[in-house]
Amino acid sequence: MVRMGEFELLARIRERLPASGPRTHLGSGDDAAVTVPGGATATSVDALVDGVHFRRDLASPAQIGHKALATALSDLAAMGAVAGEAYVVLGLPPGFGEEECLELLDGMAALAAATGTDLAGGDLTRSDQLFLAITVVGHAPSPDALVARSGARPGDALVLTGEIGGAGAGLDLLQSETGSIDTPIGVSEHQLSPSWVDALRRRQLEPTPRLAAGLALSRAGATAMIDLSDGLGADAGHLAQASGVKLEIDAEAVPLAAAAVTLSQATGRDPWWLLGGGEDYELLACVPPDRLEEATAAVLGKGGVPLTKVGEVRDGSGVEIRLPGGGLLEPRGFDQLA
Amino acid sequence: MVRMGEFELLARIRERLPASGPRTHLGSGDDAAVTVPGGATATSVDALVDGVHFRRDLASPAQIGHKALATALSDLAAMGAVAGEAYVVLGLPPGFGEEECLELLDGMAALAAATGTDLAGGDLTRSDQLFLAITVVGHAPSPDALVARSGARPGDALVLTGEIGGAGAGLDLLQSETGSIDTPIGVSEHQLSPSWVDALRRRQLEPTPRLAAGLALSRAGATAMIDLSDGLGADAGHLAQASGVKLEIDAEAVPLAAAAVTLSQATGRDPWWLLGGGEDYELLACVPPDRLEEATAAVLGKGGVPLTKVGEVRDGSGVEIRLPGGGLLEPRGFDQLA
Repeated sequence: MVRMGEFELLARIRERLPASGPRTHLGSGDDAAVTVPGGATATSVDALVDGVHFRRDLASPAQIGHKALATALSDLAAMGAVAGEAYVVLGLPPGFGEEECLELLDGMAALAAATGTDLAGGDLTRSDQLFLAITVVGHAPSPDALVARSGARPGDALVLTGEIGGAGAGLDLLQSETGSIDTPIGVSEHQLSPSWVDALRRRQLEPTPRLAAGLALSRAGATAMIDLSDGLGADAGHLAQASGVKLEIDAEAVPLAAAAVTLSQATGRDPWWLLGGGEDYELLACVPPDRLEEATAAVLGKGGVPLTKVGEVRDGSGVEIRLPGGGLLEPRGFDQLA
Repeated sequence: MVRMGEFELLARIRERLPASGPRTHLGSGDDAAVTVPGGATATSVDALVDGVHFRRDLASPAQIGHKALATALSDLAAMGAVAGEAYVVLGLPPGFGEEECLELLDGMAALAAATGTDLAGGDLTRSDQLFLAITVVGHAPSPDALVARSGARPGDALVLTGEIGGAGAGLDLLQSETGSIDTPIGVSEHQLSPSWVDALRRRQLEPTPRLAAGLALSRAGATAMIDLSDGLGADAGHLAQASGVKLEIDAEAVPLAAAAVTLSQATGRDPWWLLGGGEDYELLACVPPDRLEEATAAVLGKGGVPLTKVGEVRDGSGVEIRLPGGGLLEPRGFDQLA
């Protein structure tokens, strides 16, 4: 049962939502939103809970809203879908005020506007703990235009958008600043410029869903794709399992965020730990070798990020990450690192 | 970041899900579910939180799962949509075991099977408090076939499916049995048969979404429709506001559940309080007078429930509930009752 205060808050929320998207006939405020999708839809749901997926002492309400929508949209990017509609559930605890709630939604609405996503509906409820549940719907002309995890074939090139390690290093930085981890990192000692520090923090708190890159990869014939939320080793494992193939990754070929490498070196950590960090939300995809050049040009041109070949698809199962010198990094070990 | 235990639980959950529905090309387990909707879609999200929308001492896990999906599907019924896909987010607290989680999903899956709903995806997370967020997608040939709250016209008949008051009385019964309300109800003293008591409890804990009735009303030209979650007065108010009309309701014409009336009389309460109870999930609709007969026959024939004219749509605003003898019941008062 909805309380009157919630109706008023809903009214204030609706005022702030952008106009309806091209497929939306009826938006928030009725029993359901009405859309005319056309073609195929990709639908993904993500839940984020305070203390599990974010911390209110590390992220502003706007950053929490941004990241919740970004991680949901990243799943659409990994399908090669065009972002369509988002539906937002908020569980609001007593200590989370109306202004914070609106700031959270402003953060979400800014990313929605930047990605062409229509915030088409939602629900509010009281709860003991702040939580968000985001449903996103993406679009494609047909199911064949969407890229699942399961289509990788031996011989395909394994490619990665952008660079990784930044989100994990950013989390380390944030936690050290609040004393949450045992080994505080004195930033000034380590020759990290303030702009690098800020970039690492933002990489953790304000990830960018690679929607244009995902669409470009789909059009360039990607056979399988996944976004990196759990970490390179873990997510490569999901893709390998779904496709029934083995993935060989060349650790030296994986582009690592330079600021993250500097931070690792300065704090005396093996930079390979960065391979296990999660939440970079880059795309890992498999591309037939004869389309690798086309894919690379399209991802840079349309997606604005480099595409790097980091390995190969082989017969077999599981993931092998080859270190320089011939050693292997155990993907399972990443789960503990992350 | 998902823990290994969650992957295993997800695998056990997927085993139990029914085969994909007719529109679903790719179900749970990839980055997103892939469907080919065709025509128009109606999408609604609902969140349910332990202690706010249900109580674990009053409802079994299966009943919690049933009710969560039922209340979401009720929004599709209120649009006249055909149930399609559901996406389920579960927040699982430490004290809620794997078996309880599967029992909850079994309750949901049983209703999904009964209503032709495809459980096409979801997400699990740890949380301090049990919560559910359900997204449902319904279908129609075109947006015009879906019934919003906003189309009521003066002169339309106001109609109600089934009977109301049972869910509110059932909640009273359940709360009295656990000592949660001040005036315990001794059921045996009040000549309520055990089957009536059971029916009232189930009316509260296992509501039925009126999908077939909603579809029949849409096809019979309903101009506006809403499902009764907050209570007759409150929900009529939402419809009146969205349509810019006044709704006049004849209290004596409203079908009340007989067991609920008996319970009210036995406990010395004015039976009109039953008009304010929420969660009956019946449909309140506006129908042009020349199609009332057709609508009534269709709802009984296709939906299996009676359709009753309970009032009229007039020029003006707000809701008037006329009591026998000429008095008016104040709809706002219902919010406190419910």
